[in-house]
Amino acid sequence: MTVWSGGDWSGAGLPDGAMTELRAGVGEGLVVGGEPRGEILFGQPDPEKALALPELKWIQVTSAGYTRYDTDDFRERLKAKGAVLTNSSSVFDEPCAQHLLAFLLAFARQLPQAMVEQLGEREWSVARRRMDSRLLQEGRLLIVGYGAIARRLVELLAPFGMDVVAVRRKPTGDEAVPTYPIERLDALLAEADYVANILPANASTDGLFDAGRFARMKPGALFFNIGRGTTVDQDALVGALGRLSGAYLDVTDPEPLPKEHPLWTAPNVFVTPHTAGGHQGEEARLVRHFVANLRRFEAGEPLTDRVM
Amino acid sequence: MTVWSGGDWSGAGLPDGAMTELRAGVGEGLVVGGEPRGEILFGQPDPEKALALPELKWIQVTSAGYTRYDTDDFRERLKAKGAVLTNSSSVFDEPCAQHLLAFLLAFARQLPQAMVEQLGEREWSVARRRMDSRLLQEGRLLIVGYGAIARRLVELLAPFGMDVVAVRRKPTGDEAVPTYPIERLDALLAEADYVANILPANASTDGLFDAGRFARMKPGALFFNIGRGTTVDQDALVGALGRLSGAYLDVTDPEPLPKEHPLWTAPNVFVTPHTAGGHQGEEARLVRHFVANLRRFEAGEPLTDRVM
Repeated sequence: MTVWSGGDWSGAGLPDGAMTELRAGVGEGLVVGGEPRGEILFGQPDPEKALALPELKWIQVTSAGYTRYDTDDFRERLKAKGAVLTNSSSVFDEPCAQHLLAFLLAFARQLPQAMVEQLGEREWSVARRRMDSRLLQEGRLLIVGYGAIARRLVELLAPFGMDVVAVRRKPTGDEAVPTYPIERLDALLAEADYVANILPANASTDGLFDAGRFARMKPGALFFNIGRGTTVDQDALVGALGRLSGAYLDVTDPEPLPKEHPLWTAPNVFVTPHTAGGHQGEEARLVRHFVANLRRFEAGEPLTDRVM
Repeated sequence: MTVWSGGDWSGAGLPDGAMTELRAGVGEGLVVGGEPRGEILFGQPDPEKALALPELKWIQVTSAGYTRYDTDDFRERLKAKGAVLTNSSSVFDEPCAQHLLAFLLAFARQLPQAMVEQLGEREWSVARRRMDSRLLQEGRLLIVGYGAIARRLVELLAPFGMDVVAVRRKPTGDEAVPTYPIERLDALLAEADYVANILPANASTDGLFDAGRFARMKPGALFFNIGRGTTVDQDALVGALGRLSGAYLDVTDPEPLPKEHPLWTAPNVFVTPHTAGGHQGEEARLVRHFVANLRRFEAGEPLTDRVM
């Protein structure tokens, strides 16, 4: 069995430790870099080249997002070949959930505001900063997009005793917090102090946060986005700031956010450059996740993080 | 019974809601502002003026720190009068623990670094920032000073599964994490990735973090201080930076930190202006804490947060 590792991420550029783990986990069939080939593809293969492989059985992408594969055409052709697609979302759930909690606490403790002062006039605004600080549990968090990241975030928030609700496309009833169908979004936006957007990019989420939805949010509410930039009408967001207390964004549209974009300087907007999933040892964790799935594949067991 | 509320904080400047709660909780005996008088003092009374009151029974200070009362002379004279001193530490445990977790996560997610870029060249350093990000649980945290703030921090960290140890003056055996006498500090410093200083200011903690102790810390370790600035030799800290990955400080010596102080611009130093305990509604929570203690006082029950 041939296992190809490559594409953007790239298999050929793995740190030594991760490459050693990959070689040990796959064995003789491993092909690193070059054009996709074989039955199993690990990395970021070109979708057309992957589908062109006669023996393709399984693709595991080294990201949580899989936008360029997420078309009806790709799904149908992959299915017709009897092949499956998995992603690496379980590698990124933990850092993404920690990133969102970092955003929440940074706002609650006024960290970006302190940093602006440190880099500026160093005013030691103790009274103002204390007055603007908040206890996280004295507000309601609405999570938009309840998947693995949200599940982990809810676990991390448990000791705070915060009021958390969520919306998702199809609630299953086993969510850890009260979770409603996405159709209830407008009503729930009006009751939230913090709105955390963890939506993926697809046709149904494109521009979901538009001027009307920002207008429904509470005055003084905070908006967080670690989902995808395309889910937000950014002009509408800029227009809503001031009425909203701020926006903490890890994703924008486009990325990189152009240097002259008004979001960079809008009041209380804090931007991280799509780093929510990143962490030291990321490559090794991606390799371990793949090798664990490879064992399942060989044993004929269901694969973790299967998305097609 | 006369209850005086005043001093720096000041009783006379309370927001309406908090003043209403104070009046309702105390009743007719309440005196707001002016010189301390009566049996019970709530606020920040002058220590000498308090001790001069013939009928003094109890002082509750509206802070967690009580440095200017914390002398042998004051303790003895207070005891000789049969009076007690309580502080408001249970009002500040929660925001302080959240501030320290905010610091930990801000470092782990590289938030100050992203802010520096946002206010500077807006470079969108996605690869660098992701590589420098960390999962919080892949490091050991050493808490120096295990009291109410540490207890709450340990609760907040529970879902992370982080390796946490602590030192305190006298371990009691009922701490939630492995806790050692302060004499073990030097050995434990060498094994920690994160060192969180929550020590109060007193003779035994003065300058405790000196050049020798910073030298014992792991290369690449992080230093956090939400205790008191006097516990750190700041010149030694500046000298240790570079070998250490950074320092996140809510307290300095003196405060405000002078605008030309090298800590402001040292590599990866992030300063908040003594805001760890602050939060919206702080005054109302201080009043509620006092009124709850007043009910205990009237009932002859032990007071919460008694320190003398």
